[in-house]
Amino acid sequence: MDRGPDGKVSVLDGASALAPPPPGTLRWLDLEGAADDVLERLRTGFDFHPLAIEDCRQFDQRPKLEEYNDHLFLVTQSFSCAGVHLAKVVLHELHAFLGASYLVTVHADHLDSVDEVWRRVQTTPAVFERGMDFVYYLLSSRMVESNLPILDRITDELEELEDRVLGRRPVRADLARIFELKRHLVALRKVLSPQRDTLAMLARRGDGRISERTSHYFRDVYDQLVRLNESIESNRDLLGNALDAYLSSVSNRTNEIMKYLTLLSAVFLPLAFVVGFFGQNFDSLPGVPHWTESRSLMHAMVGICLATPVVMIAWFRFRDWI
Amino acid sequence: MDRGPDGKVSVLDGASALAPPPPGTLRWLDLEGAADDVLERLRTGFDFHPLAIEDCRQFDQRPKLEEYNDHLFLVTQSFSCAGVHLAKVVLHELHAFLGASYLVTVHADHLDSVDEVWRRVQTTPAVFERGMDFVYYLLSSRMVESNLPILDRITDELEELEDRVLGRRPVRADLARIFELKRHLVALRKVLSPQRDTLAMLARRGDGRISERTSHYFRDVYDQLVRLNESIESNRDLLGNALDAYLSSVSNRTNEIMKYLTLLSAVFLPLAFVVGFFGQNFDSLPGVPHWTESRSLMHAMVGICLATPVVMIAWFRFRDWI
Amino acid sequence: MDRGPDGKVSVLDGASALAPPPPGTLRWLDLEGAADDVLERLRTGFDFHPLAIEDCRQFDQRPKLEEYNDHLFLVTQSFSCAGVHLAKVVLHELHAFLGASYLVTVHADHLDSVDEVWRRVQTTPAVFERGMDFVYYLLSSRMVESNLPILDRITDELEELEDRVLGRRPVRADLARIFELKRHLVALRKVLSPQRDTLAMLARRGDGRISERTSHYFRDVYDQLVRLNESIESNRDLLGNALDAYLSSVSNRTNEIMKYLTLLSAVFLPLAFVVGFFGQNFDSLPGVPHWTESRSLMHAMVGICLATPVVMIAWFRFRDWI
Amino acid sequence: MDRGPDGKVSVLDGASALAPPPPGTLRWLDLEGAADDVLERLRTGFDFHPLAIEDCRQFDQRPKLEEYNDHLFLVTQSFSCAGVHLAKVVLHELHAFLGASYLVTVHADHLDSVDEVWRRVQTTPAVFERGMDFVYYLLSSRMVESNLPILDRITDELEELEDRVLGRRPVRADLARIFELKRHLVALRKVLSPQRDTLAMLARRGDGRISERTSHYFRDVYDQLVRLNESIESNRDLLGNALDAYLSSVSNRTNEIMKYLTLLSAVFLPLAFVVGFFGQNFDSLPGVPHWTESRSLMHAMVGICLATPVVMIAWFRFRDWI
Amino acid sequence: MDRGPDGKVSVLDGASALAPPPPGTLRWLDLEGAADDVLERLRTGFDFHPLAIEDCRQFDQRPKLEEYNDHLFLVTQSFSCAGVHLAKVVLHELHAFLGASYLVTVHADHLDSVDEVWRRVQTTPAVFERGMDFVYYLLSSRMVESNLPILDRITDELEELEDRVLGRRPVRADLARIFELKRHLVALRKVLSPQRDTLAMLARRGDGRISERTSHYFRDVYDQLVRLNESIESNRDLLGNALDAYLSSVSNRTNEIMKYLTLLSAVFLPLAFVVGFFGQNFDSLPGVPHWTESRSLMHAMVGICLATPVVMIAWFRFRDWI
Repeated sequence: MDRGPDGKVSVLDGASALAPPPPGTLRWLDLEGAADDVLERLRTGFDFHPLAIEDCRQFDQRPKLEEYNDHLFLVTQSFSCAGVHLAKVVLHELHAFLGASYLVTVHADHLDSVDEVWRRVQTTPAVFERGMDFVYYLLSSRMVESNLPILDRITDELEELEDRVLGRRPVRADLARIFELKRHLVALRKVLSPQRDTLAMLARRGDGRISERTSHYFRDVYDQLVRLNESIESNRDLLGNALDAYLSSVSNRTNEIMKYLTLLSAVFLPLAFVVGFFGQNFDSLPGVPHWTESRSLMHAMVGICLATPVVMIAWFRFRDWI
Repeated sequence: MDRGPDGKVSVLDGASALAPPPPGTLRWLDLEGAADDVLERLRTGFDFHPLAIEDCRQFDQRPKLEEYNDHLFLVTQSFSCAGVHLAKVVLHELHAFLGASYLVTVHADHLDSVDEVWRRVQTTPAVFERGMDFVYYLLSSRMVESNLPILDRITDELEELEDRVLGRRPVRADLARIFELKRHLVALRKVLSPQRDTLAMLARRGDGRISERTSHYFRDVYDQLVRLNESIESNRDLLGNALDAYLSSVSNRTNEIMKYLTLLSAVFLPLAFVVGFFGQNFDSLPGVPHWTESRSLMHAMVGICLATPVVMIAWFRFRDWI
Repeated sequence: MDRGPDGKVSVLDGASALAPPPPGTLRWLDLEGAADDVLERLRTGFDFHPLAIEDCRQFDQRPKLEEYNDHLFLVTQSFSCAGVHLAKVVLHELHAFLGASYLVTVHADHLDSVDEVWRRVQTTPAVFERGMDFVYYLLSSRMVESNLPILDRITDELEELEDRVLGRRPVRADLARIFELKRHLVALRKVLSPQRDTLAMLARRGDGRISERTSHYFRDVYDQLVRLNESIESNRDLLGNALDAYLSSVSNRTNEIMKYLTLLSAVFLPLAFVVGFFGQNFDSLPGVPHWTESRSLMHAMVGICLATPVVMIAWFRFRDWI
Repeated sequence: MDRGPDGKVSVLDGASALAPPPPGTLRWLDLEGAADDVLERLRTGFDFHPLAIEDCRQFDQRPKLEEYNDHLFLVTQSFSCAGVHLAKVVLHELHAFLGASYLVTVHADHLDSVDEVWRRVQTTPAVFERGMDFVYYLLSSRMVESNLPILDRITDELEELEDRVLGRRPVRADLARIFELKRHLVALRKVLSPQRDTLAMLARRGDGRISERTSHYFRDVYDQLVRLNESIESNRDLLGNALDAYLSSVSNRTNEIMKYLTLLSAVFLPLAFVVGFFGQNFDSLPGVPHWTESRSLMHAMVGICLATPVVMIAWFRFRDWI
Repeated sequence: MDRGPDGKVSVLDGASALAPPPPGTLRWLDLEGAADDVLERLRTGFDFHPLAIEDCRQFDQRPKLEEYNDHLFLVTQSFSCAGVHLAKVVLHELHAFLGASYLVTVHADHLDSVDEVWRRVQTTPAVFERGMDFVYYLLSSRMVESNLPILDRITDELEELEDRVLGRRPVRADLARIFELKRHLVALRKVLSPQRDTLAMLARRGDGRISERTSHYFRDVYDQLVRLNESIESNRDLLGNALDAYLSSVSNRTNEIMKYLTLLSAVFLPLAFVVGFFGQNFDSLPGVPHWTESRSLMHAMVGICLATPVVMIAWFRFRDWI
């Protein structure tokens, strides 16, 4: 259970051999950050396929189920998040060899899900007695559940975003956030969609490795994955809403600014003409008596200057523009 | 039939046991807001699967059909709405264990559909005699029908919205409403699409739990669900129309405002130049006799001032701009 | 053949019984706007399923094929249009019970298709001899064909619309028309897509009710429905084109108006500055001899006023802006 | 081989009978623009199904394969183009009855593909010996190949269009061209997609009409059709690019024009204020000595007039606006 | 191993015959840029199908698997890129005839993948002993892997692009780059999607040509192709993001420019009116004492000129516009 230069190797029954358990007993072997030679000993001990061992060296697989003669090779992935605003979304990957009497789990870093199940199995041996398939069910169930809070947060934030975007002036940060959430959703779908197919296969099986009793439990995990995938699709719809809301918000804003500009021009362009026209040296206005006329003109000009904006704005209101 | 701290437990034949009925008799057991220990007694009484009982604790499942050895576990969901403008859309969820001689229904709150069918069964024992599958058909039929008014309202409002948006200046509330309706449609589809698949399974069955006679009835409910799902798709198309109408309405409006602004500028910018040009101290205009010239210039200016807008607007009309 | 308060009931062999024909004979029964008690007599006479009779009361089904022990229950829908511009598009619905020796057709209003086939069967008894399935083929073929002119008109109008929208300034009526056509297409697809599936089933059948000889004919109707459905998809593409054309037409127009506004400003804003600058009381321009200078300035100003628009427009042309 | 009022009827072995060949011999019958009575003689001579003959009267079918007792009825369509810029895209349609010992081809107009294969068969009797299915393979292969140049031209033009649209100011003709190409693609897909399915059926067959040896050849045609259909999909993607490029080009242009307008206003609106402010009759500026002050003011004004545009443009550059 | 006018022909066991190896031995024949007569000798030597040989003349096939009596004909494609920014993306095509005892590979140009595997086989005869299917596995694995760096670069650049587009003013080169990347993705999908289907077939096979042991390896290549195809889909999503980001960036920019223009107008249009109004020859303002009044007016004007912009900008801030 200690972590040496070869990574941490834990065997539930305390045996140190990287090999199948003696007949009649069960064995769960957990390898964390296993070194190459440990994997090599694993391969020879259990007679695993070189390609499966090869996969265990690189943690960038996709969820899959591979069938070998006497065991299944399973890759499970899940996301966990930490911090507010989905600041740290981490992808976890668990490789598992599931035989009739053994379960070998391989992972690069510490996994909470594995830890939890390990402790539960240690404290409740009855769980262990139900078979290695049941232990694997517990692991996969834990890992699938760890995706839930992320999706819930995304849903919450998308609804918030949509309302926020519709209610105030569009801010570029909102747009960046929408794209960020979309990237999270794309990543989630990439993992959870093949994961669902894998679980569907486990839920349908009835051979020696997955007992019928346990397959009921896998069906439950499968149901949850179906719900998660549907939730992703709904969230993509919501995200489309938020994006449309943002874009129409920008258009609306352009409209408003334009309206204001037009209003300004409508009021002051005529005024500029009026003061320009009357500014033509009243005293020398040809054929018009000097003072009196000039005074009336002055009054006329002031009058027009006051009336123009009023008339303009009244007309705009009448046309239902403002 | 009274609701105590353990929730309301109703048994149709008055028996109080949470167990299957004696051979040769039928029993419908309805649990509303059941407490944990009631569910536990249910599990031991009927020997239900722990996962199904677990599902009955949390009402956030999706419609599904799970097959167990001697019964089916069914989750049905439906929406009901109250108030104008779909102000209160509520999701109902009904869990049911359907055996050959018993039906156990579990729900969190009061369900009108259950109530109605319960009363009908009480008053018309003949219905009860047709078997528990027929009773479940009545329940599912009622629940599916309760979705109809919501979809009808959405259809009506979407057609209205499209016309309204095309006919008047775009209002941001219309956009918010479009997104709200879309959210309703997404929620409806999330429920009604798996519901249809569940009913398809029931309509196809011919084993001991669903008699062939009843499967004809389930086919009818299935047909209705197909129609509902197609209606959702049509509504999504209509919604796309309303959104496109809104966006193009905003664009059109920008266009109109721009046109008006351009018109204003086209009329007053030349005028501003004219009055500016002629405002150059006529009396000192170099090389021009004082009074007479000034008068003609004055006339010229007034003439140009009157002619400019007329020419401009005529040219705009000729170019088919206004 | 007269229409009383119970609706019009027509029996081809003149018999008045709402029941299957005597062995060895064929019977076609047509019910138009049948009252409830007529339907009830039909149910008891033919022993039809209550749900199928229930469906015959409400004419808002979708095209479907339901199989019963000794007959098929078929729902067919089609559209017909009257007036120019698809002003009146009407949905027709025909319910039919097709047995080996009888055909019962039920419809709410007068149907041209039924009328036509009825007369053909009356005048050409040989047609009748080919079996009830052939008579139903004639009916379904007629009904499917009645959809053709609508789709043709939509296709024609969409191509027209696209050209019109691209060629002239966008008119809001065009947009409303695009949405209207889209609604027609959505309605057509909702009917013709399940209709195609129903016909596919009829074309594949080879049991007692549909003879292999007739199934060749149904394959022909199926082919036509496939073509119709493909035509709907092509029309949706065309409609997308028309909408894109409209939207880009609006954008283009905004562009043009902006260009004109910018042109106006580019010409007159500099001019306003020029006349403003030179309007500074030439005679008192500090340090400049009075008359001569003023005259040169005057010339300079007129020169600049003439040159500015020319230079501006030339530069715009050089930049390929107008 | 001459074309009379009944259309052109060509029989490869020179026989004039519209009937199957004597046992042990093969016959290819080609009908071009056949009159109704010729088709009627064909029907009786070969005992073809009336619906297939009916189809031969109207050349607006879709590619399909219909199986009859002793022959296949096949409809093939292809496009050919003439002139530059896909000015003349023509749809060709070939109907064929393929029996074990005969091939009857019916078409409305002269078809190059038929002509070519006819001549090849005449000059190389060995080809004929390989069976009627091989002759039909030659025909279908020729017809499928005739679609290639159209798709190639569309691909070329779309790439050109995208570059052109991105590189210069948007021209409405580009948009019209994009829509035209889209219509070509929609038409091509409508023909080539069912054609592919037909060929898939021919490639899979191994019964008496299509020998296994020939089915290898049909697989080759099928492969080409798969490539053609994939090419259509890629072209639709390219077309989406071109449309997006056009639309964003229009938006970009609006942006640029706006920027120029704003620049103009930013330079001249302040200037208009400056010259307006200083135009206030310097000589009578209250409380200021007449000449000297006026001269400094004059200098100040000219200075501000020169400085304003410089400052404005410098600030714009600093903000990275131009 | 030398390249003559007939192209380069390499035989692993040094034999020069273009024919299957003697029984009990294995042969790998590699043809680079083979001339027509070499292909002809290949056809007669191995009895390959003329259509397969025909395919080997033209290197524009799509990935496919064709089954012949005693061998498979396989077409594999892959991309490699050179230079920065995906400047040179090249498509490679490898045709292979895979028999039980021989592998014939045909390609137009030098292929690194073939070269590498050739050298590995030469140095490690054990690899060769595992069968021709294993050698082909090595080839296909190498070719599939060569696509990886392209997709990785596209992913990296798309994320960069999205950030860049959101962060600075939109540059047309970004748009052109988005379309270019999209074209790369379309090309990749066109190749990798049928490639995946081909590998799925190889992974499922268990007949004489692909041993079960090797099919495990092909499953590994298949998995990688599934991942590649999923990566393409994710990248298309990212690309949609980048395009949306670009378009909304343009809209945002229009908005900003408009805002600035409106601000300018809001400040200077009122000022122009003010200076125009007060410019009306104060000294002759009717009924107002000359100097003193004029001085107050002057102060008023200067005051209004200073106050207007301040008030305007304050109001804009209050309305949350800037």
